Amino acid sequence: MRAGGKRGRRTELSPEESVGRLLMKRGETLAVAESLTGGGLGERITRVPGSSGWFVEGRVAYSEEAKKRLLGVPASILRNYGPVSVECARAMAAGVRRRSGSDWGLSVTGVAGPGGAEGKPAGLVFAALAGPRIRRAWKQRIIGGRARVRRETVRRTLEGLRRALEEK
Amino acid sequence: MRAGGKRGRRTELSPEESVGRLLMKRGETLAVAESLTGGGLGERITRVPGSSGWFVEGRVAYSEEAKKRLLGVPASILRNYGPVSVECARAMAAGVRRRSGSDWGLSVTGVAGPGGAEGKPAGLVFAALAGPRIRRAWKQRIIGGRARVRRETVRRTLEGLRRALEEK
Repeated sequence: MRAGGKRGRRTELSPEESVGRLLMKRGETLAVAESLTGGGLGERITRVPGSSGWFVEGRVAYSEEAKKRLLGVPASILRNYGPVSVECARAMAAGVRRRSGSDWGLSVTGVAGPGGAEGKPAGLVFAALAGPRIRRAWKQRIIGGRARVRRETVRRTLEGLRRALEEK
Repeated sequence: MRAGGKRGRRTELSPEESVGRLLMKRGETLAVAESLTGGGLGERITRVPGSSGWFVEGRVAYSEEAKKRLLGVPASILRNYGPVSVECARAMAAGVRRRSGSDWGLSVTGVAGPGGAEGKPAGLVFAALAGPRIRRAWKQRIIGGRARVRRETVRRTLEGLRRALEEK
């Protein structure tokens, strides 16, 4: 049961709707950097009509080369920690923020499966956020098949962004 | 009814699965440039396990600025034809192909709605493909709400890519 849902608001807002309202109110912008979700983060964000007012761009860096070229992830981070690491997630978020000129940069990297990769298990996911008032990163471990890991990654990452924006 | 489906293959392949098989067989790679779909094209492509073997990167250029910065679309094209035009789709496909170093560049730009934009109606979509043996562009007019326009854009654009790869 959701507390106070019926009276307080007409409907519960999705995380991307909440994010959009918060950014619009502040006149701030967002860009995203994705790996295992392949574009799903941007796809869900842009379901919101009018998202062009606050969503600037997305960069889907599927390969290691693309992480370097598109997001400026240092080769040393990929060599020392690998693409599925909190260090890589942080570099991706900072990279897309800097290169897009957005106020907020959100990133996600991990193993969608099936099967592990880079010595990391399927469902291991790192997300990071770089913003004007905050740096944050979080680790997720999602149980399930490839489709569920990707879907849950998008949902939880947007929930993380909503929480951060509500706090700051 | 589908002719010969049961005997010839175990299941019908989705367009992204067909595309993946064709590219793998040839050792060729793909990158995508998206506007109105916000990442949905890359999301659907990377549903295919092992897509990292042939999918290099995606660039979601939602704003005009991002189309210039991320994809190298000339300002003159945006000024003369606007972002929802066959000229812009062609420049996006060529841009992502060139900048990613992929064999194939696929792009899509259009109006998701609700409501028109840039003097163009909702559901008007242009896709383009740049490859080693082909340049192609196609116009789509999709009837329906924002979600349907975006979903159908992804499906039809991937069907267009499959057809082109099968021919060439």
